[in-house]
Amino acid sequence: MPVFAIIGHTARTDGSFSLNDLPGGAGRMDILCRCVNTSLFLSHDLRRDVACYLVLQGDPDPPKTVFFSGEAVRYLSPDERSAGSLIKKALTLLPTPTYQESTPGVYMRRGGIHDLLTDHHFTVLDEGGEDIRKVSPLPGAFLLSDHHDFLAEEVAGIEGLPRVSVGPRSYHADHAITVTLNEIDRRNFVWT
Amino acid sequence: MPVFAIIGHTARTDGSFSLNDLPGGAGRMDILCRCVNTSLFLSHDLRRDVACYLVLQGDPDPPKTVFFSGEAVRYLSPDERSAGSLIKKALTLLPTPTYQESTPGVYMRRGGIHDLLTDHHFTVLDEGGEDIRKVSPLPGAFLLSDHHDFLAEEVAGIEGLPRVSVGPRSYHADHAITVTLNEIDRRNFVWT
Repeated sequence: MPVFAIIGHTARTDGSFSLNDLPGGAGRMDILCRCVNTSLFLSHDLRRDVACYLVLQGDPDPPKTVFFSGEAVRYLSPDERSAGSLIKKALTLLPTPTYQESTPGVYMRRGGIHDLLTDHHFTVLDEGGEDIRKVSPLPGAFLLSDHHDFLAEEVAGIEGLPRVSVGPRSYHADHAITVTLNEIDRRNFVWT
Repeated sequence: MPVFAIIGHTARTDGSFSLNDLPGGAGRMDILCRCVNTSLFLSHDLRRDVACYLVLQGDPDPPKTVFFSGEAVRYLSPDERSAGSLIKKALTLLPTPTYQESTPGVYMRRGGIHDLLTDHHFTVLDEGGEDIRKVSPLPGAFLLSDHHDFLAEEVAGIEGLPRVSVGPRSYHADHAITVTLNEIDRRNFVWT
């Protein structure tokens, strides 16, 4: 079960943002919405074995984590507004230390990257890492940052983690997820 | 200069659609917006050597082609609304057989897939094609369909074209573009 976790350094932590302004008022929530898309969508199908965690660190009440389960999610379409709408709804819940379901397959809890690090053995998707095509076996859980680098206090928690790279140029987080899943698909599925 | 062309079978051909409903009223324009994103964006940079053509075949006035030049484009952000806004503006121009610029680096003309086929030597991105990792040299121009298969009248024009596949599963068009560009990057850029 591939796991992706994306840090949204400025992503809004209440449900007051407008779906018409995901990049601005919602604190680059558009990036996280695209990561949900690339983690979970196949053509006319969903990746039912993938889990996608969004770590929201923006105002007014950080950190919170929103979790999309590919196995259970419903009411999700590929467009950014659709994921944004489900995130917004999840953020209307009162945060507790354990995940609560807001809509089918979408969950929210109080907690950030340090809590996630205790749940999964992450590999960091990072330009400086080993070429993913040469890594065997492939890791099961991948940690990414948004358009900002990891902050100093985050680096302290992840500096010992393995790192893999998807290519010789620096990609958006959602594009890096797509390339990672392509490598996973190539190892796990037979071409027909 | 990599070229991508995506057929939007239902994509609206006037500028009357709402940016708040790109999947619905705009005829799955969200798919084309994501293809613009994956064709042109690197982390904190644009792919200045890529050209992205959107072939719009929906009501009320098909076909029209909107062209994004990576070299010249301005005012483009990664979110779907941003690309949608530039497409909408391009569709307010009166269509002519040659491209007219609507905003810097964005152009529109009257014409569809058959006109594009005379401009570029396309390879079709198709699940049934040869594995892109085994193709050498890589093609320079790639043709993709949206969530619909190519129509019978389109197939007539493209049935003799070479086909390459990006993986063993069926992907959204924008994800296929990301994987294709990763393969191009790996052949053209040195890992640092």
